[in-house]
Amino acid sequence: MRDQYYDQLDSVVDDLVAMTAAVRTAVLEATDALLDANAEAAESVISGDRDIDQAREIIEERSLHLLATQQPVATDLRQLVATLRMVADLERMGDLSVHIAKVARMRMPDVAVPEPLRPTISRMAEVAEEMVASASRIVAERDVDAARELEAQDDEMDKLRRSLFRALLGDEWDHGVEAAIDIALLGRYYERIGDHSVSMARRVVYLVTGEHPEATA
Amino acid sequence: MRDQYYDQLDSVVDDLVAMTAAVRTAVLEATDALLDANAEAAESVISGDRDIDQAREIIEERSLHLLATQQPVATDLRQLVATLRMVADLERMGDLSVHIAKVARMRMPDVAVPEPLRPTISRMAEVAEEMVASASRIVAERDVDAARELEAQDDEMDKLRRSLFRALLGDEWDHGVEAAIDIALLGRYYERIGDHSVSMARRVVYLVTGEHPEATA
Repeated sequence: MRDQYYDQLDSVVDDLVAMTAAVRTAVLEATDALLDANAEAAESVISGDRDIDQAREIIEERSLHLLATQQPVATDLRQLVATLRMVADLERMGDLSVHIAKVARMRMPDVAVPEPLRPTISRMAEVAEEMVASASRIVAERDVDAARELEAQDDEMDKLRRSLFRALLGDEWDHGVEAAIDIALLGRYYERIGDHSVSMARRVVYLVTGEHPEATA
Repeated sequence: MRDQYYDQLDSVVDDLVAMTAAVRTAVLEATDALLDANAEAAESVISGDRDIDQAREIIEERSLHLLATQQPVATDLRQLVATLRMVADLERMGDLSVHIAKVARMRMPDVAVPEPLRPTISRMAEVAEEMVASASRIVAERDVDAARELEAQDDEMDKLRRSLFRALLGDEWDHGVEAAIDIALLGRYYERIGDHSVSMARRVVYLVTGEHPEATA
């Protein structure tokens, strides 16, 4: 009975890692859709979001079932509660990828990102994807050191966002209001994907070290 | 022992209602800061966010304590899990109010919202605040009918957002790129405050009716 319980607990973590991989794919495809006006990639993100939502429901149901039937205490309890939080982060990261794919689709066959901003947006997308990958490693391997890496990635994201706004508000901006709004929102979406990765990592750090993660505004 | 447990469960709900009231105040003050360039209101939102974060921590700790010591099943278990989700929604709504207050503060002594968009932003702010109030009623009184009201408010928010974008992208827009970006982000912040209210309401509807809330993108 007890062994079966630990198998079920492990299987919840496996599902969480698989869900994180699905979100990472969504972020990558959304970026393809955005930077290459790739319609197929956009549709894949938008229709694939159902699977991510479903993964959340399945993991939630399993976690609740374990909470109700096994009545875990201490670390196991905290792990299940952390899991419930992390699937919420992941579902939201999936939604943000859908938002990116929809901005991309709305501007097709054009590319929504004006050429001069391509390097910045491309790097933001890369950092966001790397942050999801770090979060995945942290969840799968309880790798607390990778959490520090994530904070550095978050700092880079912050710098990229500031440089994006400088470009949008500089005298050389000649791509109009619509493109500026697109870019401001896209920057925000990638930044939020990064924020959710950090939030996942902090949950794991708390589980492992008992140190409370800071709240972020 | 059992009575004390139900007292504790009730007191968690009371704390949740109080936290919702604090968030509602933050939304109202952020709007004052924004529409009247009210510096005091902006500072109050920004410094008050610590209290909202702390309320989240306290409610979380209490819920976890009840989960660990009382090992509730069925409805009580689901209620505590729903509470953990709702405090996350509320904390985020507090953060979004801070974002609004910071945009307002950045443009002071000017008002960040150009005059022609004042009615739309003002109405979005009102709808957001009404949505938080509805969510609060739903949490406090398990008023499932108010949840339907919330869906109607959400539809109005959607229409306001579309009309905002039409104004930003219309030929008559002559307030430049910076104001357009401010407005696009502000619209998004109010919309997200509404989304989190809907998410809270759906949790309660699920608790009361057993019908699963839809996922939103």
